[in-house]
Amino acid sequence: MSSPSSHVGPVVGVVGAGQLARMMQQAAIPLGLELRVLANSPDESAAKVIVDTRLGDYRDLSVLREFAAGCDAVTFDHEHVPTEHIKAMAAEGLQVHPGADALVHAQDKAEMRRRLTEIGVPCPAWRTVETAADVAEFAAQNGWPVVLKAVRGGYDGRGVWVCDDEDEAATVVATGVPLLAEAFVPFERELAVLVARSPHGQGVSYPVVETVQENGICVEVLAPAPGLDAEVAAQAQRIALKIADELGVTGLLAVEMFETRSGGARSESASSEAATNTAGLVVNELAMRPHNSGHWTIEGARTSQFEQHLRAVLDLPLGSPSMAAPYVVMANLLGGDDPDIFKRYEHVMAHDPGVKVHFYGKEVRKGRKIGHVTALGADLDDVRARARHAAVYLTTGEYT
Amino acid sequence: MSSPSSHVGPVVGVVGAGQLARMMQQAAIPLGLELRVLANSPDESAAKVIVDTRLGDYRDLSVLREFAAGCDAVTFDHEHVPTEHIKAMAAEGLQVHPGADALVHAQDKAEMRRRLTEIGVPCPAWRTVETAADVAEFAAQNGWPVVLKAVRGGYDGRGVWVCDDEDEAATVVATGVPLLAEAFVPFERELAVLVARSPHGQGVSYPVVETVQENGICVEVLAPAPGLDAEVAAQAQRIALKIADELGVTGLLAVEMFETRSGGARSESASSEAATNTAGLVVNELAMRPHNSGHWTIEGARTSQFEQHLRAVLDLPLGSPSMAAPYVVMANLLGGDDPDIFKRYEHVMAHDPGVKVHFYGKEVRKGRKIGHVTALGADLDDVRARARHAAVYLTTGEYT
Repeated sequence: MSSPSSHVGPVVGVVGAGQLARMMQQAAIPLGLELRVLANSPDESAAKVIVDTRLGDYRDLSVLREFAAGCDAVTFDHEHVPTEHIKAMAAEGLQVHPGADALVHAQDKAEMRRRLTEIGVPCPAWRTVETAADVAEFAAQNGWPVVLKAVRGGYDGRGVWVCDDEDEAATVVATGVPLLAEAFVPFERELAVLVARSPHGQGVSYPVVETVQENGICVEVLAPAPGLDAEVAAQAQRIALKIADELGVTGLLAVEMFETRSGGARSESASSEAATNTAGLVVNELAMRPHNSGHWTIEGARTSQFEQHLRAVLDLPLGSPSMAAPYVVMANLLGGDDPDIFKRYEHVMAHDPGVKVHFYGKEVRKGRKIGHVTALGADLDDVRARARHAAVYLTTGEYT
Repeated sequence: MSSPSSHVGPVVGVVGAGQLARMMQQAAIPLGLELRVLANSPDESAAKVIVDTRLGDYRDLSVLREFAAGCDAVTFDHEHVPTEHIKAMAAEGLQVHPGADALVHAQDKAEMRRRLTEIGVPCPAWRTVETAADVAEFAAQNGWPVVLKAVRGGYDGRGVWVCDDEDEAATVVATGVPLLAEAFVPFERELAVLVARSPHGQGVSYPVVETVQENGICVEVLAPAPGLDAEVAAQAQRIALKIADELGVTGLLAVEMFETRSGGARSESASSEAATNTAGLVVNELAMRPHNSGHWTIEGARTSQFEQHLRAVLDLPLGSPSMAAPYVVMANLLGGDDPDIFKRYEHVMAHDPGVKVHFYGKEVRKGRKIGHVTALGADLDDVRARARHAAVYLTTGEYT
């Protein structure tokens, strides 16, 4: 790692100025790094806390080139930078992490399914579809409902449709969006595994967490996943580390998984051998950046996911992912009807001096992720109740 | 707490842009606050990480007024702002914390001794002195050595002279600096208590820590102070909270104390009643801001001192000061002979994935405080060895 003469520490460029880049700054300050961020507007979440904020369009290669000049590494707040631009930057000798060959698997769900299937990672049955007839054909083999997903661009429940019949599928196909069909997985719960991998190949895994979703949006994360069988947990971590390694991920990789009763979308008909192979786990989605399922690590782990990501993209040795308390619960803060969240802030702080509120510097809009809260301790029920109370009160003013 | 329409969260102005303001930004990000900092130069530690950096001279009231306009609260990175300027700002309705009437006790050591004596806080014998004869007269009552201190402006061992005789005292007096004479306290070790007090009067105390000094500079902090008698610890916290309350401190107050065998500078001749009254504790110095003895709280306490200070100056409910691990050790990083500290960074990270390195974004200069390291765990000797190893290796490249 070099220390350019014009800066005291290394410079990391972050494309995108949302809350992930904002939380990276919290980690960059003690690390002595200087962050540079590419924002669309000076009002964005990270632009408010990063001095070297540049404005520009990440879809423009010349903007990216100018932005990256002088950075020791370039990374991302989101997964929308065109693959060919990332390739062009790497070809010019820039350290871009994750690289295009890895990132494409987080950008393109069909590429992701192809590759995961190739390396033997448990996936639901899947195929790309172009017509409602394709979907019906897939359903004939795998049953309804069929999950249709936009191959590119979906997140937080957007770009995902659960179709119960061919008519519903036809409506989705009619949007013209390139689609992937997946068998519906009758899961017990959703898990996530966050791993980091550095360019020289060091890998670490955080404990497996349970994620609780409402309307396709993660509302709560429980760390570690309560009551998870130790062997299943180890298997989940092995799967995530294997994906990171096989895909050549540099930086963080979040692997969202379904925990099923016996493993696999067609578990009822699966042989006991197949059930053992998949250990009750089916991979749902990948993200290659700090992830909502890892926000608990800021207080809850020795190394936050944001610090870990910065260490990984600079090819520094990775930090300890061990937990700072027996249980950590994170609850997302979604905007409610009343925009003046600060007037409820004092009550939450007075009620629970140990809860941590994280605001993203965003104006409150109904349903928008504007922050999160974290609680930790030795009693899961208590910790969960504390996090929920704070999140619900901040959003609605209701006392739970 | 109001939320001005032009900002999403409250705005806190910090006068001074050193590492304390820099570390406040790490706390301000999740709190959703916007920091504004008054710097001497854009290269200063905090100016590199705070977007709203204003340049100007804190000794100029018109500069301070313009800086403070629109801030929900104003606080300080250092104690050098003239008392009369703080009074003028408060008279104009600005929320300035700590206020002038409190801060003067951290700015003026004679004022501090006068007031602490008045409220019955254990101090060494003291008097202000103008001539070497004054010092000799004081020594005739209290013995040599006599500690001479600049009434204003000293820190990190500067402005403190331990004089063994009248000749040495005469040399110090000749500098023309207004002086305070104090009896030399034959202490066992140095302790520090960090407390927070908010304008509406809520107070909290962090656990008592031991500070280890070399050449008048704090090099290591052990939290909690190992083997400290529980009653002495409680007494130390009561003394610090009493000082905060009596002096009307708003924000943080660090109270540096000597632990003596039986309490007081003249402990050999003290009555057993006096020894009981002082519980083996003598107050040495006060600081009214985040303090080096509290850097361990960033990872080591549920609420860091920087978050606590921001909460206090905004009159928000205070956070939990409880420890995040049984033992936490902080070691300061002083600049060594080799300025390229980053080349040793990787080795420290690889050696100990759990140690936390904090850089202040400062160029390395010999003897300059450029950062600190923190280790935590259940075994004090191990934790201490880890922190020391990291600090020594980063400074010198020597493997301890």
